[in-house]
Amino acid sequence: MSADLPLTPDYDAWPIHADIIAVESDPQLVTVRWNDGRQSRYHGIWLRENAADDSTINPATRERILDLSTLPAWPTIADAEVDEAGALCVTFAPEQRRLRFHPGWLRAHDYDNGEDPEAPLVPVTTWQGGEDKVPDSLEAAGLLDTEPGSEAEEAILAPALESVLAKGLVRLHHLPTEPGSLKAIARRIGPVRPTNFGLLFDVKAKPDPDSNAYTSIALPPHTDLPTREYHPGLQMLHCLENSVEGGQAVMLDGFAVAEALRERDPEAFVTLTRVRWCFANTARTTDYVWYSPMIRLDERGELLEVRIADFLRGPLQTDFEEVEPAYRALMTLQAMLREPEFALRFTYAPGDLVIFDNRRLLHARDAFEGDSGHRWLQGCYMERDEIRSRYRLVQRSRRQRRLTRE
Amino acid sequence: MSADLPLTPDYDAWPIHADIIAVESDPQLVTVRWNDGRQSRYHGIWLRENAADDSTINPATRERILDLSTLPAWPTIADAEVDEAGALCVTFAPEQRRLRFHPGWLRAHDYDNGEDPEAPLVPVTTWQGGEDKVPDSLEAAGLLDTEPGSEAEEAILAPALESVLAKGLVRLHHLPTEPGSLKAIARRIGPVRPTNFGLLFDVKAKPDPDSNAYTSIALPPHTDLPTREYHPGLQMLHCLENSVEGGQAVMLDGFAVAEALRERDPEAFVTLTRVRWCFANTARTTDYVWYSPMIRLDERGELLEVRIADFLRGPLQTDFEEVEPAYRALMTLQAMLREPEFALRFTYAPGDLVIFDNRRLLHARDAFEGDSGHRWLQGCYMERDEIRSRYRLVQRSRRQRRLTRE
Repeated sequence: MSADLPLTPDYDAWPIHADIIAVESDPQLVTVRWNDGRQSRYHGIWLRENAADDSTINPATRERILDLSTLPAWPTIADAEVDEAGALCVTFAPEQRRLRFHPGWLRAHDYDNGEDPEAPLVPVTTWQGGEDKVPDSLEAAGLLDTEPGSEAEEAILAPALESVLAKGLVRLHHLPTEPGSLKAIARRIGPVRPTNFGLLFDVKAKPDPDSNAYTSIALPPHTDLPTREYHPGLQMLHCLENSVEGGQAVMLDGFAVAEALRERDPEAFVTLTRVRWCFANTARTTDYVWYSPMIRLDERGELLEVRIADFLRGPLQTDFEEVEPAYRALMTLQAMLREPEFALRFTYAPGDLVIFDNRRLLHARDAFEGDSGHRWLQGCYMERDEIRSRYRLVQRSRRQRRLTRE
Repeated sequence: MSADLPLTPDYDAWPIHADIIAVESDPQLVTVRWNDGRQSRYHGIWLRENAADDSTINPATRERILDLSTLPAWPTIADAEVDEAGALCVTFAPEQRRLRFHPGWLRAHDYDNGEDPEAPLVPVTTWQGGEDKVPDSLEAAGLLDTEPGSEAEEAILAPALESVLAKGLVRLHHLPTEPGSLKAIARRIGPVRPTNFGLLFDVKAKPDPDSNAYTSIALPPHTDLPTREYHPGLQMLHCLENSVEGGQAVMLDGFAVAEALRERDPEAFVTLTRVRWCFANTARTTDYVWYSPMIRLDERGELLEVRIADFLRGPLQTDFEEVEPAYRALMTLQAMLREPEFALRFTYAPGDLVIFDNRRLLHARDAFEGDSGHRWLQGCYMERDEIRSRYRLVQRSRRQRRLTRE
């Protein structure tokens, strides 16, 4: 029977969790009753635009070719029923076109029973640090030997993606230590975002450094590249060598720090969501500048991102009256960032890869003795889109495996 | 005398347009009087943080090492004066540290006389299209033969950057037509941002296309990759071959269209700033989804970005009551996007490069006859940060040349 079901407008798998048992319609709406008691209404115009036939979708690309405003009139429903295959069949006027809809797809896109379409793929949890706490640590030996897109690759990647989506952080162990191998590792998730520091950047003490990161001094908790309109959503740091004394890695959940600040000193919190600091990275051949609050909220007042990096702040250029409150709030934040209960502290082992959300987490490092050995990390950036796309494919293949078993 | 002036905390050039003639201070503030009559106040804490000495800035990287909250107390001013070189000299308590400030730098960062630090580098002007209108068209032959960073390179790049910053668009002529040469051309501005479509993407009719762009059908006005959290700020399209019938390029100023919509149909405008549409690009191995209004405003109600692409919209998932108003607003916008007065229409010549702001402009193309010849564009993305950084270097070198002449 399922062989007769219509295509969906995408490449995804849509298991059928409920069957359509009754259909009613008027010119504007179709009302569908499902065999588990749910009722869903769909607007005629919504159905028309989301059909998967060749007048709506380019069959080669599965991208829409219909421009609604070129239809002879606002599409209305002439007739609606459920067919033998279990699909919803709707005849649209004035086109007099009969189109069929897959019941699994329809049910998954039921906007009449209000699930939040933007709910995170994995629930987000903020975290504290403190002594003995470490990041989620996963075995990743053999990742590069798996077939791209295979179940074996997914077995390593899926829990890592889940940690990054939930906690903003994961640490993978026993990856290769060949210089440049980060490129192949990152590609298992998605394309790398190069910057003026290159596709991969080398974090080690260098002669003539163009960043404090490329020295052996301590780095205070920060996000990378706050000097850009959109600083990178993800960062990867891959340890190739680490035999120095010191140089411990420190990670903080910037959202946990911001929420604690909101609790303890609401005025400082509000100041840091309002004052637009200057972030600047001026070098001999580049000159990046961006202005932004250190804490950004979305329309509902929820944390959207943090943008903090003392060593990348240019001169504050704000209203004269804002300057002292701004610095008071900054110094309160700076002191909190030194409190040990927020920090996860660990030592990189060669083969470790830490992946973290660069718009949420802050990272820092202790100073190290440059003469005591070698410390070499390679890093790169990526967008959060890539990790979400990769995780949606994990979800899709899980659904497909379930469909195959059924 | 200028040999004695202190360093600035950056790599920039700060010509001295006015001299300090008098200084007053109290513990919180320094008041500077300039010889052109201006008076500027600077907070002690602001000055302390923006000093350029070795206790504040890492001399190797010119990045800050001072953490204000680790000072023994809130910095106050014990004494302030102008020295023989014309620098402001401030002694800070409780550190008892005397620090000197460059008068050109101080004057340029005078936040007490309220210039907008975020003013665009070049004034932004929206534009209409219409018959006989073409994009700003500039000669770029020889660009790749210039020395990177040279005055000759700047002579070609500077007006192009200015057009992109002001109008969101420029068209360069007579660049090489070798496949892949876009990589070297783009590098003259900054690093390319690769996506799941690669570092460079080939826009031509392909077998088994994964995007409507890779067919010969017409493409309606759109921004690229609205399916991402931050869709790319800049796009470059480089023509290698064009001998087909049809396939004309179309460009619209999305900000002009949005402002016209705000004027003509304020309700539709507000609806499109509120409803979060689904943008989706699901393919066999990737699955990008993002939710966003089609028109986004900043805190002051000014246009921030447009995000429009009919063929990359997934199923709308919004409140039931929003669906009909949303489609009404969408269809009003769709009809406006077909009005000829918004569109610049031109034919690509081999060697043309069009650079445009992908969060402001919409681009489209007419259908073409696949059998009538060849049409091959190569494209890439970049962030707006790169174009601003490159333009700030132009400004810096102009200032340096002025300093040298003085």
